[in-house]
Amino acid sequence: MTSTIAGAVATEIAPIGAPPVPAVLERSRGVVLPTLEEVVASLGEELRTPVEYHLGWRHADGRAARKGGGKFVRPALAVLSAEAAGAPARVGIPGAVAVELLHNFSLIHDDVIDGDTERRHRPTVWAVFGVGTAVIAGDALLALANQILLDLPGAGGRAAARALACTTTALIGGQAEDMAFETRPTVTRDECVAMAVGKTGALLACAASIGVLLAEGDADLYDALTDFGVHLGLAFQAVDDLLGIWGDPARTGKPASSDLRDRKKTLPIALALASGRPEAEELAACLGGADLGEADLVRAAALVEACGGRDGTEEEAARFTASALGALEDVGIPDPTRQELADLAAFLLDRQF
Amino acid sequence: MTSTIAGAVATEIAPIGAPPVPAVLERSRGVVLPTLEEVVASLGEELRTPVEYHLGWRHADGRAARKGGGKFVRPALAVLSAEAAGAPARVGIPGAVAVELLHNFSLIHDDVIDGDTERRHRPTVWAVFGVGTAVIAGDALLALANQILLDLPGAGGRAAARALACTTTALIGGQAEDMAFETRPTVTRDECVAMAVGKTGALLACAASIGVLLAEGDADLYDALTDFGVHLGLAFQAVDDLLGIWGDPARTGKPASSDLRDRKKTLPIALALASGRPEAEELAACLGGADLGEADLVRAAALVEACGGRDGTEEEAARFTASALGALEDVGIPDPTRQELADLAAFLLDRQF
Repeated sequence: MTSTIAGAVATEIAPIGAPPVPAVLERSRGVVLPTLEEVVASLGEELRTPVEYHLGWRHADGRAARKGGGKFVRPALAVLSAEAAGAPARVGIPGAVAVELLHNFSLIHDDVIDGDTERRHRPTVWAVFGVGTAVIAGDALLALANQILLDLPGAGGRAAARALACTTTALIGGQAEDMAFETRPTVTRDECVAMAVGKTGALLACAASIGVLLAEGDADLYDALTDFGVHLGLAFQAVDDLLGIWGDPARTGKPASSDLRDRKKTLPIALALASGRPEAEELAACLGGADLGEADLVRAAALVEACGGRDGTEEEAARFTASALGALEDVGIPDPTRQELADLAAFLLDRQF
Repeated sequence: MTSTIAGAVATEIAPIGAPPVPAVLERSRGVVLPTLEEVVASLGEELRTPVEYHLGWRHADGRAARKGGGKFVRPALAVLSAEAAGAPARVGIPGAVAVELLHNFSLIHDDVIDGDTERRHRPTVWAVFGVGTAVIAGDALLALANQILLDLPGAGGRAAARALACTTTALIGGQAEDMAFETRPTVTRDECVAMAVGKTGALLACAASIGVLLAEGDADLYDALTDFGVHLGLAFQAVDDLLGIWGDPARTGKPASSDLRDRKKTLPIALALASGRPEAEELAACLGGADLGEADLVRAAALVEACGGRDGTEEEAARFTASALGALEDVGIPDPTRQELADLAAFLLDRQF
């Protein structure tokens, strides 16, 4: 089953079926990858090995792999944001590299923090190289992300570096809130959204707007693309939250009901707990229990759904998606670039259950 | 017994006994602490708690503590470097806060990486709050360090941010090399010094010169103070390496011979292994053994000394110290500031065995 949200977005872009892989992803990879490779190659051997493993460029034993890794959505957004400001793609490259490095810093550290042993169907960095190496490899990526922007001349580089620094602080704050929520009995819908703005929205907002700063483009365009990115991030997180309870382990690469297992307070759970329905009390008691067995997880997922947590989150995701796409309409962006941004949004939100 | 090196430095500054606590430390604390407190207070609750604990501002249970923590040497250097460029102390404040944040980022993460459970005679952050919290609290300090400099207007802030970014990369590279050395049978003296330039020298060099950048001071002064800082760092590391083998656990807060136990390749060990003396082979065999018992550690320490590793490191420390103090002579620095820098160097290197 395809996510309803992805379906809704896809409908706006292409009339039938799941959206195709946008050409901009391949194009951005071609533009950005050489610089990313150069930056990673500047690391000492002992940092480069775990980083290249994480990026999917090497196997755990050090053999070179076909350059796989992530989907490269964030670099593509950075390139498109430079083009939206009328600059050539190459102006966006340092921003694209910086956001991709920042993204991977956060993935490597999050896997340590959450104790996750698998990502993209491969063992995580800490699971292969140990916690110490994962911590310092993440640190190195954060430092490089910052440095690549500060090495640029001109006002654009400084503005981009400042935006990246604010994004980093927001990202870390969001991740810390997410951790803190695990030990709280309830969180409100608004607390949940505020956390997601930090954890997911801030980086996508930075990716979708950093090219405007590098191109020294228009402030209205910067604001609109920031708005696009933050709502895209919120929609992505809402879909992720749905997958975290009802996703198919074979597709998500995570155990079934993993968010319930980890006592995360994601949007479906927050909405359910605050629903005032009689089942909400049973849900709270269930999640507050000392040890959650498989039967408890199945029961908890059913209770979240009965309390409207699933429908409510789908509605929120659709609203966030509409806000993201709406932001692109309010400001002058060349038509091919606007379409590419919309295609990228549809692709990002097309995640299978 | 007082360190020979500290004694040598102290002799240059004050004729008798250990150097007193320099007045500049208290003065800098007064100037810098309000801004540091403000920056830390900007963190969300879940990050502020472990950070304030680490800084010695709170007990593990959250009760406020007398503001203790580190000696505040790096902020004092930053303030002095602004004054060396003829600017008032307050010009150095953002640099002082940034280097102190960067220093504490590296301490929190290093304790995770090295698995150390105690620092400054208190349990480390990860030992109290868990690895995940320590990782993210460190991340938050690194992000803040960067942000405080990027928030400044003018060319000085950008230059300082750039210097901090290079320092961060060097610091992380040095720490990664230090880790990698543990699994290598030997390292050369030069590899050892290069690692210490990153792990210890880079941050002290940044602290000792960042005020010149913020004051938009003279390039020769910047170079001289960078030179001072990096050699001060190398001298400090050499003394630290001596303490890591022959330090008194009650004073260092670490187990006896901790560096031998951890198979670190510090300067005394590198010099001993490369000495060509007959005992060097026994030392290599001893350190290569599967499990190091107390008797092995005592024997290994004696072998390092027999191979000249102890004397050689003391000589290196004295040379680095002389280079640091020499750097202050080559350039125009107002006399009281020069003396305060020298006092600070003497204080930093006065560490008890």
